Amino acid sequence: MSQPQPAGIGKGRIEALADGVFAIAMTLLVLDLKTPAPGPGETADDLPRKLGEMWPRFLTYVVSFLILGVLWVGHHAQLHYVRRSDRPFLWMNLAFLMVVSAMPFSTALLGAYREQPVAVAVYCGNLVVAGLVLFGQLHYAAGPGRLFDADMDPALIRAGSRRLLMGPALYSLAAGLAFVSTTASLVVCALTPLLYLLPGRVDRLWSSGERPPEGDSPTKG
Amino acid sequence: MSQPQPAGIGKGRIEALADGVFAIAMTLLVLDLKTPAPGPGETADDLPRKLGEMWPRFLTYVVSFLILGVLWVGHHAQLHYVRRSDRPFLWMNLAFLMVVSAMPFSTALLGAYREQPVAVAVYCGNLVVAGLVLFGQLHYAAGPGRLFDADMDPALIRAGSRRLLMGPALYSLAAGLAFVSTTASLVVCALTPLLYLLPGRVDRLWSSGERPPEGDSPTKG
Amino acid sequence: MSQPQPAGIGKGRIEALADGVFAIAMTLLVLDLKTPAPGPGETADDLPRKLGEMWPRFLTYVVSFLILGVLWVGHHAQLHYVRRSDRPFLWMNLAFLMVVSAMPFSTALLGAYREQPVAVAVYCGNLVVAGLVLFGQLHYAAGPGRLFDADMDPALIRAGSRRLLMGPALYSLAAGLAFVSTTASLVVCALTPLLYLLPGRVDRLWSSGERPPEGDSPTKG
Amino acid sequence: MSQPQPAGIGKGRIEALADGVFAIAMTLLVLDLKTPAPGPGETADDLPRKLGEMWPRFLTYVVSFLILGVLWVGHHAQLHYVRRSDRPFLWMNLAFLMVVSAMPFSTALLGAYREQPVAVAVYCGNLVVAGLVLFGQLHYAAGPGRLFDADMDPALIRAGSRRLLMGPALYSLAAGLAFVSTTASLVVCALTPLLYLLPGRVDRLWSSGERPPEGDSPTKG
Repeated sequence: MSQPQPAGIGKGRIEALADGVFAIAMTLLVLDLKTPAPGPGETADDLPRKLGEMWPRFLTYVVSFLILGVLWVGHHAQLHYVRRSDRPFLWMNLAFLMVVSAMPFSTALLGAYREQPVAVAVYCGNLVVAGLVLFGQLHYAAGPGRLFDADMDPALIRAGSRRLLMGPALYSLAAGLAFVSTTASLVVCALTPLLYLLPGRVDRLWSSGERPPEGDSPTKG
Repeated sequence: MSQPQPAGIGKGRIEALADGVFAIAMTLLVLDLKTPAPGPGETADDLPRKLGEMWPRFLTYVVSFLILGVLWVGHHAQLHYVRRSDRPFLWMNLAFLMVVSAMPFSTALLGAYREQPVAVAVYCGNLVVAGLVLFGQLHYAAGPGRLFDADMDPALIRAGSRRLLMGPALYSLAAGLAFVSTTASLVVCALTPLLYLLPGRVDRLWSSGERPPEGDSPTKG
Repeated sequence: MSQPQPAGIGKGRIEALADGVFAIAMTLLVLDLKTPAPGPGETADDLPRKLGEMWPRFLTYVVSFLILGVLWVGHHAQLHYVRRSDRPFLWMNLAFLMVVSAMPFSTALLGAYREQPVAVAVYCGNLVVAGLVLFGQLHYAAGPGRLFDADMDPALIRAGSRRLLMGPALYSLAAGLAFVSTTASLVVCALTPLLYLLPGRVDRLWSSGERPPEGDSPTKG
Repeated sequence: MSQPQPAGIGKGRIEALADGVFAIAMTLLVLDLKTPAPGPGETADDLPRKLGEMWPRFLTYVVSFLILGVLWVGHHAQLHYVRRSDRPFLWMNLAFLMVVSAMPFSTALLGAYREQPVAVAVYCGNLVVAGLVLFGQLHYAAGPGRLFDADMDPALIRAGSRRLLMGPALYSLAAGLAFVSTTASLVVCALTPLLYLLPGRVDRLWSSGERPPEGDSPTKG
């Protein structure tokens, strides 16, 4: 009880705001897929070719959506274990959402300038910051007597931290690589979210130490 | 307990994100209804005629809204029976939302080029993929020992699957038809959601085997 | 048990989607408040005058926001008494949300052409349809053996219906008036939501027959 | 029971609408970060310089996001103590959300004209009104026999009021200062939200008199 905490900002409120921000950031990505307009000397019959030329935009859309999905999963997995909130944690969450909200900008920048190292680096940098803020939250929440349960398995926190830091590490690499080869950098960016689709050590720990959250009773298994 | 599952991503979280994405995708459709601007040699008095000329846009808005409504109903009916979530199911849901989020793009493309077969086919293709991912989810969740209740009526799953596949089947037909007649293709697209307004075999099964979800107690009937 | 009902689409799901759609429709209104750009021969110092000239846009924003607020209140008051949902009611709700989602279009049209009768009539017409669909929902839900509690006070339903129909009646009047005087029409539109700010007969009935909704325990009074 | 209240508009509904509006207003801020396009005589290689020139836009984004975060925290802290809702309180909340929804306009105006006193004053004015409406809500809810618990500590209400009024006071000052020096005004605007990051007297009162809200059980401390 030594630390003051902002009452009234429960975990549920943070989750509701986060779900809203993620839903909107994901959906705003589509605003970057603009209906192609015929250029000078072109007619509507050029549409198939023009749609084909949009493939980097479509790919950017898919990759950014997946990356937001990975961040959403990471944010919720973390909130699942948080038992209470305090002011620093609340503001780390708002900072995280601010970085997530910037993704449609970074994505549009990348879509327009995918051969410019600085555009690729800004995109990667956005992802690095998002991952680091999320790691900062985890580190803060896991501190002694902080926001997690006292009897939480430290191995689970360590496995979660390692899994979480994989992203910023690879995106930092990609940011540097952008100044050598933007193509190589983008390949790293596109492959990284796929790594998170695979189950990892954290899943094994989760499934063994699992307590079902309220309102989500796994009747099987 | 043999399968690892991502704790912290309960069913409620997926539903909240889905409700957000659907609400935004539905509302973004309106951005395609642009205020008509007077062209060269036109005045504000030409507004009634110009609004009249927008009728294909209004129709596209209504049809796309209804189609998103059908998908939303289908997604929630499925989630209703899911008792727990795992990593593959979670990512199928994110893939589904990614396809749903693309609908404002497909709708705007169709609104701008409704006589171009490729635009109509992209629109229909978006709907085919949405339906197939939703079917993939259902098929995965219904697997033995997976995410549905063990005592769930297999006839209900079969009826739900058939109802769900009706959409991709008709939209595939419409996609092919687009290269013969875009008008015929659009008629199929516009009529398909109306089929889902009718009650079907799945309703009879639902109402007989119904267990009320928590917080939603049907005191009548 | 005679009526089939779509399981899995509980009241909570409809409310969540409605809250999302209303939040977005309200927030999209701001997109019509565009940053004024200096015209030919103007400089940044003309900003105060240009902001002043935007007053009809600001007024349209406020009125449309209030009107959406009235509709949101009406929708939720109705849902509060609904004990279960069925397929026709679900689709009436989606139709209602479709009409609500069109408000940013009608508002932008009105903002651009506030002296054109057809623009004013489209705006009023949008509100008439929204009110009538909401009334249709109420009428359907109140049918014998339908979605309301059997012991619900019929006087409350009658008072709610009258209050609800006040809107479409006045907006219909405003739509007709638009072809005589757009100013008079807009005055009616702007004053109508204010009527809903006042307590009415329905409030007295509500407060006397009130059962607290779950999770919302009025400990006082 | 003397006051009529709109049944069906529980606290939860207001919170859901508010979370949606805040999530969208926060995310719409990013629409003001436009991908820079090469001007006449510029090439894609000018991108780093053009991104650098966007720094005031980035700063405006961060400050506006933080300010919305402060308002969101303030709104929820207040709602936390509200035990029931009535019609005036409901409409004050809608007025508050209307002012919050206008923030993307004020932010875009400021981003485009940060050296014009009127643009800075509009931005500050928006924040003053938001704070005053929030204070009005608090004042109303705290009235004798109104919406707060009867046994609520008056010192907590006084501390909350003082903390809340700090914002409008400083933003009023900044609005006036804008006509002397826009830079000085913006410095005040940017520093004010930082004051809210610090714990205050209200936190000490909160943590001592705290009753855990439902569904948010602090198992520690």
